[in-house]
Amino acid sequence: MNPKIERLTKLFAKLPRVGNRAAVRIVLSLLQTRDGRIENLAAALLDANENVVPCEICGTLTDKTAGRCEFCRDMGRSNGQICIVRDMGDVWTLEKSSVFHGRYHIIGGLISGMSGVMPDDLNISTLPARIKNENITEIIFALPNTVEGKTTQHYIMSVVGDAGVRFSELASGVPLGGDLDYIDDGTLSLAFGGRREL
Amino acid sequence: MNPKIERLTKLFAKLPRVGNRAAVRIVLSLLQTRDGRIENLAAALLDANENVVPCEICGTLTDKTAGRCEFCRDMGRSNGQICIVRDMGDVWTLEKSSVFHGRYHIIGGLISGMSGVMPDDLNISTLPARIKNENITEIIFALPNTVEGKTTQHYIMSVVGDAGVRFSELASGVPLGGDLDYIDDGTLSLAFGGRREL
Repeated sequence: MNPKIERLTKLFAKLPRVGNRAAVRIVLSLLQTRDGRIENLAAALLDANENVVPCEICGTLTDKTAGRCEFCRDMGRSNGQICIVRDMGDVWTLEKSSVFHGRYHIIGGLISGMSGVMPDDLNISTLPARIKNENITEIIFALPNTVEGKTTQHYIMSVVGDAGVRFSELASGVPLGGDLDYIDDGTLSLAFGGRREL
Repeated sequence: MNPKIERLTKLFAKLPRVGNRAAVRIVLSLLQTRDGRIENLAAALLDANENVVPCEICGTLTDKTAGRCEFCRDMGRSNGQICIVRDMGDVWTLEKSSVFHGRYHIIGGLISGMSGVMPDDLNISTLPARIKNENITEIIFALPNTVEGKTTQHYIMSVVGDAGVRFSELASGVPLGGDLDYIDDGTLSLAFGGRREL
């Protein structure tokens, strides 16, 4: 394979959800049909790299010129609630479902002894100041329902401490349309423990 | 979603084997971890776009500065055989298997009334001259085993005509490790018709 093609293929293959075979198909498609896609893609990459930055307050990705992100600028979102999420992908997932109308706080990872992620590596220390500045009354944890997620959640609760805010987390249980056959024991146990009276 | 992020996501989502969800993950990964991947990818895209061109003789993708491709330059490949393939991906597939040691001729598509691809849209007309110039004795068709593939093959045979070359095509049959349960009737019928005496 030509070295320039090989270099490009290797870069694509390292992207998430793109393997070697898909990378080959992508590069082939781009190089066999020269319809401006390559120039557009390169320009969009460089533009986003230069101009999209994390919001200095909540960490969501936003335009550099905007300073604050759309969520932190939107006063309609100032409802006293902050939803704590791991990354920007979780923000997009929650926004798509339109279930939350407050502001976000992206911590950028989860505390994990295994992966060597310590509390100081995460965007947590600015949280107490936000709670005061934005008159926050409730912190909603939407972190992964895993050991790391729960560890991080407990750490954040200890950092925020007795600041007069309520803490809550997303409910655990059987997903909508979920067949009991396919639910793991841990989820089933949580769903039993949290059963609702009818 | 931020417009710059959206633009980039849409461009990724249009690439083969990358859907919307994968595109979101890719963009997220690139923008959340700024480790030079964006700059490298953009540079590799522009470099390949500028410097990788189809070989003027056989159509395989090659360095612009090289003029002829590695196959057409390599005199060891001058064995009188030309393998006719649809695209560069097929060249890579054949090269990986090391079954063929001659030269290639990429036609760039298949004749198809459905898709409106006519013989003139394909790289076929240069073939008679190649046969003469390179003392070709055998043309091996490695086109898809479909109606379009066979139509294209017949058309090429009619164009080349009686130029003193032998024509051959890849054998049809049960793939290695193929279970008869999973083989379609057409393949089974071809495999029966082409059965080997033992």
